[in-house]
Amino acid sequence: MPRSTTAATAFLETCRGRIDQALEARFAIDVASTPRLLEAMKYSVLGGGKRIRPALCLGAAQALGQSTEVAVVPACSVELIHAYSLIHDDLPAMDDDELRRGRPTTHIAFDEATAILAGDALQTMAFGWLAEAPGLSEGTRLGMIRELAVASGHRGMVGGQAIDLESVGKTLTVEALERMHRAKTGALIESSVRLGALTAERVRDDQLARLSDYAGALGLAFQVQDDLLDIEGDTAVIGKPQGSDLARAKPTYPALLGIDGARTYLQRLLDTALISLGGFGPEADPLRAMADFIVARNH
Amino acid sequence: MPRSTTAATAFLETCRGRIDQALEARFAIDVASTPRLLEAMKYSVLGGGKRIRPALCLGAAQALGQSTEVAVVPACSVELIHAYSLIHDDLPAMDDDELRRGRPTTHIAFDEATAILAGDALQTMAFGWLAEAPGLSEGTRLGMIRELAVASGHRGMVGGQAIDLESVGKTLTVEALERMHRAKTGALIESSVRLGALTAERVRDDQLARLSDYAGALGLAFQVQDDLLDIEGDTAVIGKPQGSDLARAKPTYPALLGIDGARTYLQRLLDTALISLGGFGPEADPLRAMADFIVARNH
Repeated sequence: MPRSTTAATAFLETCRGRIDQALEARFAIDVASTPRLLEAMKYSVLGGGKRIRPALCLGAAQALGQSTEVAVVPACSVELIHAYSLIHDDLPAMDDDELRRGRPTTHIAFDEATAILAGDALQTMAFGWLAEAPGLSEGTRLGMIRELAVASGHRGMVGGQAIDLESVGKTLTVEALERMHRAKTGALIESSVRLGALTAERVRDDQLARLSDYAGALGLAFQVQDDLLDIEGDTAVIGKPQGSDLARAKPTYPALLGIDGARTYLQRLLDTALISLGGFGPEADPLRAMADFIVARNH
Repeated sequence: MPRSTTAATAFLETCRGRIDQALEARFAIDVASTPRLLEAMKYSVLGGGKRIRPALCLGAAQALGQSTEVAVVPACSVELIHAYSLIHDDLPAMDDDELRRGRPTTHIAFDEATAILAGDALQTMAFGWLAEAPGLSEGTRLGMIRELAVASGHRGMVGGQAIDLESVGKTLTVEALERMHRAKTGALIESSVRLGALTAERVRDDQLARLSDYAGALGLAFQVQDDLLDIEGDTAVIGKPQGSDLARAKPTYPALLGIDGARTYLQRLLDTALISLGGFGPEADPLRAMADFIVARNH
């Protein structure tokens, strides 16, 4: 394992600990109108996950010399949005997945109606929590809410999922596939980094732009790697049936570029991500390590 | 038709015009990653609806002597939340309704996946739009986001829907039924009024409390009336199959209190709503008229 991957693993572990703790503390004091709904929300959010998006959020705060403490709630908000999107994506009417992170998906563990509602409530919680994030000015919190809404709504994540569903069985160009992924997964990853950057209230536009470039390349790299894992990985490691994208005739990078072509593209995206961080000092090392990690991950 | 009902109809018409115009203007400049998703969102939001919640929001602003202009975006946000909840409630895994406001429900007019995503995106839009509502201080906008999140999340509307699903086929007490409705529909109705009140940035706590009492009673009245309509109305007028609650063995007020008992309860709730407005002058007449209207409505 290369050194940077070890560094990324250590950084991810630290972030995961802090995020899990914050999420658990939030749910521990929470009540819902029915225990079952809250259980489904907790099952979906606290049931593992690498917390890559929160780590990117904390990493971006750190890259700008900001205390990561104020980035914890924004990071949790992004993770809540991610968790809600997974619940809804897994539904029978959508991707119809029964396994996620090696466990039954929420609608299998509970029921479809509860899964829909748990997803809905997690989205609500994300915005409500962000509105009261401690240590941030009112203007910053409002800016973050707008940012997260654009990234996760019909012009971002949800829009990308809609394109994805329309694309099943179709042949897409690489450009169209990229557009889909930039919306479906890229927008939220970019938003994770931007929310972290916005915690440094005096972040300059050029810094924000370079961090966005980094995140954009990273988000695509993540997807290319996902497609490669779907072909090369095995079910036990990736936590979902191997080859499931192929089985559903979903367009993928290896299908369009070949496996070697996809690997080359992945490396180019990694290079772009790292070059975008060129103007940052060693404070950005966790973000650099994350780029290496994402390419090296096998699950 | 009593005079106050005419007044309410006129007020509702005015509000509906302003809200529809604001929603249409918002969607006219909007783009989504796919046209179909945006179409489904517009179908669900712009396809009629009495705009009762927005009218309550504007009415509360007016009751406090505030210009209703600044209440338009908060009112639209509440309506977006309401619209998203209807889409998801109508899904096969939930209430499985094929008709809403006399038109095919969103998952029938489009498809289930698109309906889920349109609902998700409308919720996102509600919070994103509220964050940039013009004419309101940053603190007020953040307070409104928190308010709307609590009212519509797992402790409010979504939580109430979860209780509702768990209650099918069960015998509830009047108290349990009331708890369910206070969460499922009452919380958002109360929030509509509170958001309108919060536009008057110097609203006093006691004013807010009395407006909340008004809205709480009104929300329950709305539900009792809904239950009565389900028994007494006909499909063409109420826009959904008559008797559908009974057919699904949903607990209702007439089932628990009898039809006459439910009518008496409805009148008592209306009285409570009007008494709560006792301290307000003629500026609150639209809210008073709305209470009469809700009880008198036949659809």
